[in-house]
Amino acid sequence: MSQSFQPPQRTLMGPGPSDVHPRILEAMGKPTIGHLDPAFIGMMDSMKALIQYAFQTNNELTFCVSAPGSAGMESCFVNLLEPGDKAIVCVNGVFGMRMLENVTRCGAKAVRVDDAWGTPVSPDKLEQALQDNPDAKLVAFVHAETSTGVRSDAAALCKLASDHNCLSIVDCVTSLGGIPVDLDTWGADAAYSGSQKCLSCSPGLSPVSFSERAADAVRQRKAPVQSWFLDLNLLLGYWGSGAKRAYHHTAPINALYGLHEALVMLQEEGLEASFRRHRDMHIKLRDGLADLGIAFVVDEPYRLPQLNSVWIPQGVDDAAARQQLLAEYNLEIGAGLGDFAGKVWRIGLMGHSAREENVDLCLRAIKSVIS
Amino acid sequence: MSQSFQPPQRTLMGPGPSDVHPRILEAMGKPTIGHLDPAFIGMMDSMKALIQYAFQTNNELTFCVSAPGSAGMESCFVNLLEPGDKAIVCVNGVFGMRMLENVTRCGAKAVRVDDAWGTPVSPDKLEQALQDNPDAKLVAFVHAETSTGVRSDAAALCKLASDHNCLSIVDCVTSLGGIPVDLDTWGADAAYSGSQKCLSCSPGLSPVSFSERAADAVRQRKAPVQSWFLDLNLLLGYWGSGAKRAYHHTAPINALYGLHEALVMLQEEGLEASFRRHRDMHIKLRDGLADLGIAFVVDEPYRLPQLNSVWIPQGVDDAAARQQLLAEYNLEIGAGLGDFAGKVWRIGLMGHSAREENVDLCLRAIKSVIS
Repeated sequence: MSQSFQPPQRTLMGPGPSDVHPRILEAMGKPTIGHLDPAFIGMMDSMKALIQYAFQTNNELTFCVSAPGSAGMESCFVNLLEPGDKAIVCVNGVFGMRMLENVTRCGAKAVRVDDAWGTPVSPDKLEQALQDNPDAKLVAFVHAETSTGVRSDAAALCKLASDHNCLSIVDCVTSLGGIPVDLDTWGADAAYSGSQKCLSCSPGLSPVSFSERAADAVRQRKAPVQSWFLDLNLLLGYWGSGAKRAYHHTAPINALYGLHEALVMLQEEGLEASFRRHRDMHIKLRDGLADLGIAFVVDEPYRLPQLNSVWIPQGVDDAAARQQLLAEYNLEIGAGLGDFAGKVWRIGLMGHSAREENVDLCLRAIKSVIS
Repeated sequence: MSQSFQPPQRTLMGPGPSDVHPRILEAMGKPTIGHLDPAFIGMMDSMKALIQYAFQTNNELTFCVSAPGSAGMESCFVNLLEPGDKAIVCVNGVFGMRMLENVTRCGAKAVRVDDAWGTPVSPDKLEQALQDNPDAKLVAFVHAETSTGVRSDAAALCKLASDHNCLSIVDCVTSLGGIPVDLDTWGADAAYSGSQKCLSCSPGLSPVSFSERAADAVRQRKAPVQSWFLDLNLLLGYWGSGAKRAYHHTAPINALYGLHEALVMLQEEGLEASFRRHRDMHIKLRDGLADLGIAFVVDEPYRLPQLNSVWIPQGVDDAAARQQLLAEYNLEIGAGLGDFAGKVWRIGLMGHSAREENVDLCLRAIKSVIS
């Protein structure tokens, strides 16, 4: 016979999930109600407004995909691309690579703009690619690369896309709530995030937003969206406005309770205060790591405060050290991905994890396992 | 400023979500841990075994899609179909229609076998379609049509598919845990369910299972799976066996805690006892509704005990009556879908909702709103 699962109490300082505040855990345990219950529809309206606040957008087409950030990414590509379209994808880490995969699986042609892992997307290279590909329909890039800890200049990249009459898709999975995300100022056309990073909720949900220009592109499609589950035209019958909502899929009720509470808490703190807290904790961590002789992968101007990629000190066994952090300190930090596997640690300071006590624990624990 | 959401306490007797047991709500509120934490991987292994038990299968390829049943459905079609393939889809309600949509969005050709809403899929018609289409690759049908309350003969339909060298996809969303589901005895090749029906968990997750024959078909594909998020080849790096798991997407940790607990409870009760309870509560409800002069849509041999479709009594305003049930009794029952909108109510007796006190409340409340 299988037993009930009792999770250990960890401190989550990897690339997400981050620590989930007790208020959010409590919200997820509240009584389940129906996905067409008037009370639930009221909650959905409130959530739309909260996601608009987080993304700093007035986009009407703002809601939550009922699946993790990877599905949020896919929802942007399958709705905006048709077979034969051309998309420029900026690749400077794992999630740019995943965008490429999405483009080709839509039957579209991908033009790849590469930058080295650990460096930001180069606006100059993107501009060149746009000039070389006047038939491109969209530009996709990652604002905050979770695999490297790099921030790219979303405003500049969106503007280039728009100047060349392209739509833009921006991955805001790790940025939302941790550093400024300003969809309307940027002129971004589609953006997605995840619940488990700086929003500090449990994983499994993806807030998304689409501009009016993106919505037009979806309406003007010739081919049906290849995913029934992610088809914006259908989803809007459920997430649209007004009291009358059409059943599409059964929404993940309790998970949405959690995300709603996480967004209420973000609004209570305020975006600016949240950004400041992430920055302050990053500086504290950075100074502590410097004392331990641990160096950052990313140059200072492009560093994400919420995702700190550092070189594993020479002579330290990656897996053994992380296992020791987990066993002795109940502390999770992230391994390197792809090219950085075995060479890099990723220390997350996201949402509720961006706290003094977490930074203190992390520095104390790392000091002990590397010495 | 947005406020924290306080859901009302409902009794859920619609087509799902069903009432969620307090043990499951509590499980969803436990501390979040990482999706690659060794403790979490142990929970995933336990969940695989529990899903195998629920589906009565030894299929190695048994796991949980990190999204609702609609995505579970899509995962079966996008993995097993390639552009140009031919699929026979049996349609006797909304979810057969949705299967059709999935086939065409995969670029495959659908052959439609229709039966009237409220009646089961006809094995004779399927056999004819198989004879007429020797080039068909698969057969898809719904075991328990949530839109009508009809049970089809899954064993017979899977055998026909297999006899004609076709793969089979079976929608077990509403059947799993409520009536016998025997994938291995049936010889089914792919099946999906949902967390929010007879498993009585919160919505948002889809247990799935694939036979070795289905896995071979996926391995032999020429075209890549059109969905990155649902690609079985990639998912298995995470849900496969052994201690080493590759990151694919970030799993919905707390939602999976809930489903694990729901499956532990199903195993504690035992499948046979759960089926008996659903049957007993159905008989009690049926007798009570007969006393109120309310007639069933579906003939007795094909009725699902867990989803009772009944004709709305003449002179009763559908929407007003359901609103009154919600307002005065905190009771949710389901509206009719598609052809049955405005004519039919769907009363769910699923999982934790299949209890004496729920049946009593439902009969008392319906009596008051129709008189």
